[in-house]
Amino acid sequence: MLFSGRAHRELAEEVAQHLNVTITPQTAHTFANGEIFVRFEESVRGTDAFVIQSHTTPINEWVMEQLIMVDALKRASAKRITVVMPFYPYGRQDKKHKGREPISARLIADLFKTAGADRIMTVDLHTAQIQGFFDGPVDHLFAQSLLAQYVKKTYADADITVVSPDSGRVRLAEKWAQQLGDRPIAFIHKTRDPDKPNQAVANRVVGKVQGKLCVLIDDMIDTGGTIVKATDALLEEGAADVVIATTHGILSDPATERLSGCKAREVIVTNSLPIPEEKRFDRLTVLSIAPMLAEAIQQVFEDGSVTSLFDGNA
Amino acid sequence: MLFSGRAHRELAEEVAQHLNVTITPQTAHTFANGEIFVRFEESVRGTDAFVIQSHTTPINEWVMEQLIMVDALKRASAKRITVVMPFYPYGRQDKKHKGREPISARLIADLFKTAGADRIMTVDLHTAQIQGFFDGPVDHLFAQSLLAQYVKKTYADADITVVSPDSGRVRLAEKWAQQLGDRPIAFIHKTRDPDKPNQAVANRVVGKVQGKLCVLIDDMIDTGGTIVKATDALLEEGAADVVIATTHGILSDPATERLSGCKAREVIVTNSLPIPEEKRFDRLTVLSIAPMLAEAIQQVFEDGSVTSLFDGNA
Amino acid sequence: MLFSGRAHRELAEEVAQHLNVTITPQTAHTFANGEIFVRFEESVRGTDAFVIQSHTTPINEWVMEQLIMVDALKRASAKRITVVMPFYPYGRQDKKHKGREPISARLIADLFKTAGADRIMTVDLHTAQIQGFFDGPVDHLFAQSLLAQYVKKTYADADITVVSPDSGRVRLAEKWAQQLGDRPIAFIHKTRDPDKPNQAVANRVVGKVQGKLCVLIDDMIDTGGTIVKATDALLEEGAADVVIATTHGILSDPATERLSGCKAREVIVTNSLPIPEEKRFDRLTVLSIAPMLAEAIQQVFEDGSVTSLFDGNA
Amino acid sequence: MLFSGRAHRELAEEVAQHLNVTITPQTAHTFANGEIFVRFEESVRGTDAFVIQSHTTPINEWVMEQLIMVDALKRASAKRITVVMPFYPYGRQDKKHKGREPISARLIADLFKTAGADRIMTVDLHTAQIQGFFDGPVDHLFAQSLLAQYVKKTYADADITVVSPDSGRVRLAEKWAQQLGDRPIAFIHKTRDPDKPNQAVANRVVGKVQGKLCVLIDDMIDTGGTIVKATDALLEEGAADVVIATTHGILSDPATERLSGCKAREVIVTNSLPIPEEKRFDRLTVLSIAPMLAEAIQQVFEDGSVTSLFDGNA
Amino acid sequence: MLFSGRAHRELAEEVAQHLNVTITPQTAHTFANGEIFVRFEESVRGTDAFVIQSHTTPINEWVMEQLIMVDALKRASAKRITVVMPFYPYGRQDKKHKGREPISARLIADLFKTAGADRIMTVDLHTAQIQGFFDGPVDHLFAQSLLAQYVKKTYADADITVVSPDSGRVRLAEKWAQQLGDRPIAFIHKTRDPDKPNQAVANRVVGKVQGKLCVLIDDMIDTGGTIVKATDALLEEGAADVVIATTHGILSDPATERLSGCKAREVIVTNSLPIPEEKRFDRLTVLSIAPMLAEAIQQVFEDGSVTSLFDGNA
Amino acid sequence: MLFSGRAHRELAEEVAQHLNVTITPQTAHTFANGEIFVRFEESVRGTDAFVIQSHTTPINEWVMEQLIMVDALKRASAKRITVVMPFYPYGRQDKKHKGREPISARLIADLFKTAGADRIMTVDLHTAQIQGFFDGPVDHLFAQSLLAQYVKKTYADADITVVSPDSGRVRLAEKWAQQLGDRPIAFIHKTRDPDKPNQAVANRVVGKVQGKLCVLIDDMIDTGGTIVKATDALLEEGAADVVIATTHGILSDPATERLSGCKAREVIVTNSLPIPEEKRFDRLTVLSIAPMLAEAIQQVFEDGSVTSLFDGNA
Repeated sequence: MLFSGRAHRELAEEVAQHLNVTITPQTAHTFANGEIFVRFEESVRGTDAFVIQSHTTPINEWVMEQLIMVDALKRASAKRITVVMPFYPYGRQDKKHKGREPISARLIADLFKTAGADRIMTVDLHTAQIQGFFDGPVDHLFAQSLLAQYVKKTYADADITVVSPDSGRVRLAEKWAQQLGDRPIAFIHKTRDPDKPNQAVANRVVGKVQGKLCVLIDDMIDTGGTIVKATDALLEEGAADVVIATTHGILSDPATERLSGCKAREVIVTNSLPIPEEKRFDRLTVLSIAPMLAEAIQQVFEDGSVTSLFDGNA
Repeated sequence: MLFSGRAHRELAEEVAQHLNVTITPQTAHTFANGEIFVRFEESVRGTDAFVIQSHTTPINEWVMEQLIMVDALKRASAKRITVVMPFYPYGRQDKKHKGREPISARLIADLFKTAGADRIMTVDLHTAQIQGFFDGPVDHLFAQSLLAQYVKKTYADADITVVSPDSGRVRLAEKWAQQLGDRPIAFIHKTRDPDKPNQAVANRVVGKVQGKLCVLIDDMIDTGGTIVKATDALLEEGAADVVIATTHGILSDPATERLSGCKAREVIVTNSLPIPEEKRFDRLTVLSIAPMLAEAIQQVFEDGSVTSLFDGNA
Repeated sequence: MLFSGRAHRELAEEVAQHLNVTITPQTAHTFANGEIFVRFEESVRGTDAFVIQSHTTPINEWVMEQLIMVDALKRASAKRITVVMPFYPYGRQDKKHKGREPISARLIADLFKTAGADRIMTVDLHTAQIQGFFDGPVDHLFAQSLLAQYVKKTYADADITVVSPDSGRVRLAEKWAQQLGDRPIAFIHKTRDPDKPNQAVANRVVGKVQGKLCVLIDDMIDTGGTIVKATDALLEEGAADVVIATTHGILSDPATERLSGCKAREVIVTNSLPIPEEKRFDRLTVLSIAPMLAEAIQQVFEDGSVTSLFDGNA
Repeated sequence: MLFSGRAHRELAEEVAQHLNVTITPQTAHTFANGEIFVRFEESVRGTDAFVIQSHTTPINEWVMEQLIMVDALKRASAKRITVVMPFYPYGRQDKKHKGREPISARLIADLFKTAGADRIMTVDLHTAQIQGFFDGPVDHLFAQSLLAQYVKKTYADADITVVSPDSGRVRLAEKWAQQLGDRPIAFIHKTRDPDKPNQAVANRVVGKVQGKLCVLIDDMIDTGGTIVKATDALLEEGAADVVIATTHGILSDPATERLSGCKAREVIVTNSLPIPEEKRFDRLTVLSIAPMLAEAIQQVFEDGSVTSLFDGNA
Repeated sequence: MLFSGRAHRELAEEVAQHLNVTITPQTAHTFANGEIFVRFEESVRGTDAFVIQSHTTPINEWVMEQLIMVDALKRASAKRITVVMPFYPYGRQDKKHKGREPISARLIADLFKTAGADRIMTVDLHTAQIQGFFDGPVDHLFAQSLLAQYVKKTYADADITVVSPDSGRVRLAEKWAQQLGDRPIAFIHKTRDPDKPNQAVANRVVGKVQGKLCVLIDDMIDTGGTIVKATDALLEEGAADVVIATTHGILSDPATERLSGCKAREVIVTNSLPIPEEKRFDRLTVLSIAPMLAEAIQQVFEDGSVTSLFDGNA
Repeated sequence: MLFSGRAHRELAEEVAQHLNVTITPQTAHTFANGEIFVRFEESVRGTDAFVIQSHTTPINEWVMEQLIMVDALKRASAKRITVVMPFYPYGRQDKKHKGREPISARLIADLFKTAGADRIMTVDLHTAQIQGFFDGPVDHLFAQSLLAQYVKKTYADADITVVSPDSGRVRLAEKWAQQLGDRPIAFIHKTRDPDKPNQAVANRVVGKVQGKLCVLIDDMIDTGGTIVKATDALLEEGAADVVIATTHGILSDPATERLSGCKAREVIVTNSLPIPEEKRFDRLTVLSIAPMLAEAIQQVFEDGSVTSLFDGNA
């Protein structure tokens, strides 16, 4: 049985269509003081439940709604509860950057465990280590392959360099480079430039990009600041063109404004988070992860193999 | 050490003043996509931490912020973490009213336990059984005594009947009646009136209220619908006057409009939740629970007795 | 597979007949020093086990016996263990009435969880919040409907008022009133009467009962003191007649003496607890909950819906 | 702070005197249906609590009472809770003797852990492995040393053989033999005698006992059957005399009758369980473990060493 | 599905043959710094997994390898994980012999629980109480029956006495004696001989062995010191011959040297641990437990009865 | 109190000297079959225990020894147990690289939690996310600062570029570059070179290194293969010189051979792992982390701030 939170019903419905099922009907509403209420309208006793929620803004609402749905399923005797979160909330807070900070990504895993989740299914984690935060099976799906296939097809003849917008995504760039056929890679080194002591921070390009089509990759675009500055730096350094490709299009203000105004030829994201009309713009391409989610759910339900969907990598 | 979420800093500061301490400085902000970040600016290692948050709208934000604060304290080696929640969130969902519902009040207790809370301090729970939802000590404070003392002083000479606005608060009315000096009680029975089959629901007053000053009590006022209808029913039944007294002034829209327009002589609440200027009106009295919270925190910190603050009842 | 403790085998056997199964044979005895021993005589590996125990006096014996049965089932590899307790033990200690008290009803839930219980099935809890004490599914069945149907049929033409014997059961009275067809309700207010300062406690009737058939309801009758005084108060207030209806007939001494000597026309209980011959008397009616338990077990076993047995309310 | 259940207040009071403290006053009673209620009359917040209960008949009552006391202490914010059980209940059910049995001794450990116990203090466990059943520190005290010292002094000049009444206590006999000064040991082999095929079970003495003072040891005497038969077998085999020494005098019926009628010269037990007047008889000697308990509690309270009380063996 | 660690693949393969299955292929290797890596080469989602490991030297390697295999199975969504450990590691550390020691046998149980084990299957535990260390079902198989049947057949006509090599195994000797047909038993009492004060420790034989075939039993032979000294003592005492029979042939150096040089007629062990060529010697008989393991696994897989394999004793 | 495993006593003793304490004496030995035994020779009741172990080869032995020490401390009533592991074992298995793998780094965290660890102190984790694997405080110390200060001082005038040996350590290189004064960074891109299709893998240098002193950094050197190839690639690309700096010198065979034969000017490691004489060579510099560990332990013991030791970063 498939259940959907209220954050992004379109995705859940697209998944349901691929699975040829209907989403279990439920009552869900928010009380005047913000408390969320959920009741399922059909018996869920003994069911193998998949609960989809897209963790978009207001993200804490949707986290709490999904927790409450899991609690209700547990108490209504569902046999197994799989939490499907295409975008893992608080994934960026996966460690203490400084002392006396939370590790909110671990907290999220523990909260869902406590509520009653048996398994998590998620897409392109900020860091793969987050899998280890959950005490149980995590099915980690790769939308990056989807994006790479699209880029490969669309820019088949281009002389591509894969670029990481900062030092932390170089490993990801390497994987992209491999999928696109052993391409070279580069990255942006954010630093104070010792040669220009007055300038606060420079975006130094490390690696060769001159004359290249730069595929600028990341796992998410939030406000778009970093990625747009990276685009500028690449073009200044002589890049022929820039294509931006990321899994999670958070697109918080003023991302749309920045991206639509920047010089990248195309911006590619998935629908792991809802991309409403007002956030869209001409050069934005949105790929659907619904077929991938549907196939993974099918495999889990039938005790098949999710790993085999990704050539042994999931 | 005292810590405060961002929901209602005024209350926390008032408590701090009573305790003659300062709130531990912290960095707290909300990212563009709604994720919350917290860092403490002083070492909390080995500390006896009290984390105050007022669970007002948007309630899920503030729940998550307090969970994240607790996680950060746990990971920063606080010795003991007491979660202070003057208004217990989701207290009304303390049971399954029908099948396939969550028990969100239990979920809240478990989430805080998971995050690292050692103890909960709270005020006037929706039902006292919620104490049993937490696996550890719960200090349950009674602001009702505060309200009762105020009523007793203000309406010293009145011929009072205590009234519950529905069948579920009659026990609470009984406690009030005792505190006000063995007063009679009444309640409103919501029912379809078998004598008037066309009318949807009637508010039948059970008990004698004619000529009385009715003290209409409850644990919270949310949108105010029930309490205003109860006021009308009492006056129709011949009550001399109505005074409304509740602990938690949620005052969701259109509560202020309804209450300021109703015929009750006075509406008394506490500051367990913030009551901003725009929610206030002439006949509203707001009592502060800060001295009570401060005294309880002092007792907990010094391993004294909280029970003795309430004549053995806490 | 159905298992039964030794407290009330008749009920378990009646349930077994309705399910058309036999109770799994076991060895159970009590050693000279009171320690209980249990061994199952057939393989229980992989079974869906239902363990029935009726928590009558000596209640701690039967709690421990059921815990030991659950432990034995867990260690013998039962697949799922449902604890069936028609009367939830220690349900009245569901909160701290004063400071430094246990919350024994939560303790009971935790003890069974620890022993290995996956689910609890119970009947007419003292307060519905107890469902939230167990970290897992609770099937809460309503024998009250059974009682109400009986009253409705037996006293079809009477002018009924539903009466709660104290301020804490008014909500329950309201449910009864609805099931009997939107009847009026009343309750007994135990108070010191300010008008008669010398009298210790008065039983003030709140609501109109004159000339009515009062259906005096409660979840249990223990020693019968409260309910008999309530009966007297109602008749003094002019009630035409009184019928007492409660789910759990604990009937501790001197309940039978009191009830058989009181002026109520009929006393109705269920067999959730054993009612041996010596506790029975003329005007006592005992309804069987075995069909209801059997049907619920059937639904759980087949992953059907228990909620649907109670019009969506369980 | 010292707390005592109602099973054996004399022992607790004797311990309190040795510690020069008073037992914390509490309200404890049993309701008509057997449910137990406890409330402490002084604040226990932050205290280092020791809860003594002697697990005599009716043993399940006293187990539940102690569990409820621990729950109340946990919820009232005791800092650390040490459960003192001189006789560990259900110690004999420390393994599955056959399939589909409980391991009740483990269950007991888990129940106390769940209720909130931080540590267990106990005396002469049935098997030392039970220490491993509790997930936390167990202080295992040896009353056997007390008994051995008494025997050593009383029978200083005797030619002693230490005898185990069955094959499972031979290790214990070996420890005794060492404490009494490298004495020989023997045991009773319960078997069908192949030479006498008609006789059901024979008590074959293995080891030399002729002309010896046999010190017949065990951890407990329940109904006394085994130990009396062992006495007879030893005397038949030519033993000069028999002295019985065990830690726990359960003395269930008909133990007193059997022991007072048997030919053993002396029966020595401790007061780990209450030995009321009616169970006593002439040749019974009762040694008090109160000084040992008091000293151990003192060491635990002061973070001293319990091990050093027993020459490194505890 | 059957999985095997690298410690003793022969046993796992023999079990697989009996079950007519193949061991699931996996990649397992040890990195240069000793860290172990495991990956399964087929999907294990939803499987009922049995993980066999033989805990031979280097025992901590094999414990860790099995833990890692269980972790990988848990994270790969195996439905149920049964840890098969024919020799339970650290079984001898099943209690604190003195203060400030670990209880490593309990630790082992907890480590496997934490890694994700649902059930343990093991053979001839050092003490049966270890079953209670695991919080879940333990299938305890008896290879002792296998050994006893072999002895019964091979030495059908001998006048047998069963001998325990120390005071702790007398109960085991009693079980053997029963299985061999109500034979007499004896044991070796290790003591300082009070008559020979200069001699450090004497091996006193308790029980009659003169002219008998002594079947010297134990659960394991480690370095063989105890058992060889016991053999000598028995022969000195006039025993006709000695046969040594133990389940677990650890055979650490210099066991093979000692045993091959001792005067016992035959030494019988099982293959619960690997017995490589260099440890074997002429009079050593190795019985295979593979059929027994296979049959037990079959029963567990089919939710049959393991108890029935051992006449109700497992 | 300070406790030390047997893996690297020199480090523990150096720490002890800095703290001016002595390591608590203990008995620790390995039985013939590899089982480890530990007993503490002084009372540890109520102590704040720090247990140091260096996880060198044979790593599983030392993991198990430390687990057993923690278990013994827990059962002996230590108040708080801090596990000090300068090199976190299995840190490289911090995620599933492919399907059906373990996450052994999480497993390690859980095993220590289960054994009784309250806190972990560790140095330069393979990835910072591992902090989130432990459910409790982790003090993450930075030996990298120590290394950077040494490099800064020793190569004060050099024209430095910081180089990561692969795409996964670029973030670390960035931190180094910042600490050395806003230096440029580069990394080695391991790839199949599309221009040389026959060559298996090429080490492409990304970033400018010509004429530079390349500081080649990593968290550990195991067999040295990667780092030596990186050195070669840098020199081929025109680097002036190469200095290798890593925290953890595992130095498994043939690391010493490779490193002593390679063209790097200096190899710098710490003594987080023992570096015995036979692994040392001329150009190897070993820095001691003992002062840093001692200072951190001091801060933890005194409830001071560890964060402040690292400018707010720990």
